[in-house]
Amino acid sequence: MDSKSRSSTCIAPINIAVIKYWGKSDEEQIIPLNDSISITLDTDYMYTKTTATISPEFTEDSIVLNNEQGSGDGVRFQNCLSEIRKLAALSKHASTIEKSTWKVAIVSENNFPTKAGLASSASGYACLVYTLAQLFELESHKSELSALARIGSGSACRSLFGGFVRWFHDSQPCIARPIAEAEHWPELHCLVAVVSNSSKSVGSTEGMKRSVETSKLLEHRIKHVVRDRIEEMKMAILEKNFEKFAEITMRDSNQFHAICLDTYPPLFYMNSTSQAIIQLVHRYNQIRKSVKVAYTFDAGPNAVLFLEQAEMSRFASVFYSFFGSTPHDQFFRGKVPNVTDAMEDAASLVPDKALKGQVQYTIVCNVGQGPKTIDPTG
Amino acid sequence: MDSKSRSSTCIAPINIAVIKYWGKSDEEQIIPLNDSISITLDTDYMYTKTTATISPEFTEDSIVLNNEQGSGDGVRFQNCLSEIRKLAALSKHASTIEKSTWKVAIVSENNFPTKAGLASSASGYACLVYTLAQLFELESHKSELSALARIGSGSACRSLFGGFVRWFHDSQPCIARPIAEAEHWPELHCLVAVVSNSSKSVGSTEGMKRSVETSKLLEHRIKHVVRDRIEEMKMAILEKNFEKFAEITMRDSNQFHAICLDTYPPLFYMNSTSQAIIQLVHRYNQIRKSVKVAYTFDAGPNAVLFLEQAEMSRFASVFYSFFGSTPHDQFFRGKVPNVTDAMEDAASLVPDKALKGQVQYTIVCNVGQGPKTIDPTG
Repeated sequence: MDSKSRSSTCIAPINIAVIKYWGKSDEEQIIPLNDSISITLDTDYMYTKTTATISPEFTEDSIVLNNEQGSGDGVRFQNCLSEIRKLAALSKHASTIEKSTWKVAIVSENNFPTKAGLASSASGYACLVYTLAQLFELESHKSELSALARIGSGSACRSLFGGFVRWFHDSQPCIARPIAEAEHWPELHCLVAVVSNSSKSVGSTEGMKRSVETSKLLEHRIKHVVRDRIEEMKMAILEKNFEKFAEITMRDSNQFHAICLDTYPPLFYMNSTSQAIIQLVHRYNQIRKSVKVAYTFDAGPNAVLFLEQAEMSRFASVFYSFFGSTPHDQFFRGKVPNVTDAMEDAASLVPDKALKGQVQYTIVCNVGQGPKTIDPTG
Repeated sequence: MDSKSRSSTCIAPINIAVIKYWGKSDEEQIIPLNDSISITLDTDYMYTKTTATISPEFTEDSIVLNNEQGSGDGVRFQNCLSEIRKLAALSKHASTIEKSTWKVAIVSENNFPTKAGLASSASGYACLVYTLAQLFELESHKSELSALARIGSGSACRSLFGGFVRWFHDSQPCIARPIAEAEHWPELHCLVAVVSNSSKSVGSTEGMKRSVETSKLLEHRIKHVVRDRIEEMKMAILEKNFEKFAEITMRDSNQFHAICLDTYPPLFYMNSTSQAIIQLVHRYNQIRKSVKVAYTFDAGPNAVLFLEQAEMSRFASVFYSFFGSTPHDQFFRGKVPNVTDAMEDAASLVPDKALKGQVQYTIVCNVGQGPKTIDPTG
């Protein structure tokens, strides 16, 4: 490669919305109809890794996604690239202005199964934008980068920040900003349950469009429910009030799926395993006489559970007794919890044999940081 | 039995709401928060049969339900009895006034499995009230009887009428009245799919109470959605506009279940089989390039499908190819449709092997008449 080419490798986290984004006011610019709040998960186990190279020798933009050659002319990818070049062209630095005209080669991969239904486009576009920003020396333009990631995939704008993040639907530009850093609530942990046999369903871009067009309840949610919830959720996070945080999280997940069901034809993202997980969480909380665990589901059947560190071993043991069909160090990945025989809780929470194997595996992690540059050889 | 005793045997139909009732403004009087519209199904296959006997010799009220002795002191049963006695006591006929003080013996049974989740309390209380009305010579008090049945079980007030029935939430008294007779739309047929392995869930009395208390969307549904739908549905019925009727029916069923999901903790009445039926109906309509079939689900996983007679054989054949695991004359009961090999439609609607057996059986019937007296020996 010629001496003028530059390369950078970065990783970016996934984020999980606890107040859901569902519905756009502008399809092309990806402006959401309501604010949302998300939690960034640590990159110890799940992340997108992107290597970007720019060179005056390249004749076209190219992209390799998860080892598959893409043409580089996807609309969203090109929109993203074109906007970041515009930003670079406005730079005070001659070198950045020069580089803004070079073509790029992108190699990007997720270290978690894309098909598992985890939000790979959020970490993917956040990583793309962040990596290109390193090459164009635009790292300091945090807000603009969030807006650029948004054009690639709405929720990607939240993955540019660590910790607890709010995406504003009416800010100029439309961007996300942190509510609190990851270190604010270190006790908060996350258990991602990857559900087996998830079938294909309507993609979220098409799904939310259909909801906006047909649901008679969505507008009410946006205008009269989410606004208060955003403020309550922000307070719950700032106060580290787990019970309040958990209840709002569960209610908002359920309402999002209610909107999907009120869509015509209806959208089903949760399946019978998702239902079983919801019911287990409510029964567990009932037995614990306090809200100890919260669930949330995006546009797919996988559950994301939040709980504090002190509850992890106890809950993980019960969860494993219901769903585990592999040795516990295979069933749990990431920060593998200590698992006991869960007899005490299982006495009143009788596992249904039919549920064994319905959760393929789980990933246990912390709240984490935003994107970062890594050593490409590492 | 002494010569003064009187006995009457009647049957009453079940009814299926196409605009759903969910939520009360008065728990004791069972006043609904919104109007609903239902269709009364014929009693050729499904009905409640009740024999009531009154006698001055009886020392207490008694009831036998589906061959199980009840104590006769259930609150709703006693409320119903007490109100009908009040009505009888106001009669101009000395004989009715006298009989209003006699105790009653009730024997009631459903000829369809109660556990199948079909609305047995609606036909049950409609039949109880109608049968007692024969004995007390109150048959002509149609409105009062509808109100009396309502006190037993809300939707029972609709089963006192045949055809297409509207229950008014703000009439005085709170009663149902017909929109159109059964003969108005003889082409309209109904296929009830009894889903296998339906698990226990929260009862509808408790469920709707929880929705009223916790759902952030229910009030909007009641105030801003149902009102228009009631008028649209009434017009669709009067015009026999199947497509319009079908779309409103499906949208309202979905919205009712969306409210259940927005309830906290959420209520799940549909299961994966229900979802599969919904998806099949939408795909079938898509292929037929017109809305030929509608689904609706009450507080349970069983599907009630509406379609016109001309479509029955074609749809039944496809439905059977997906769900049938017994010979077709066992799978279909009631007005057994002609079943072909469904190859034409099945080419683009590939049955999923896993669905076989998930529907236990189906009942095919017409729109039918209200309660009637029958020969008890028949």
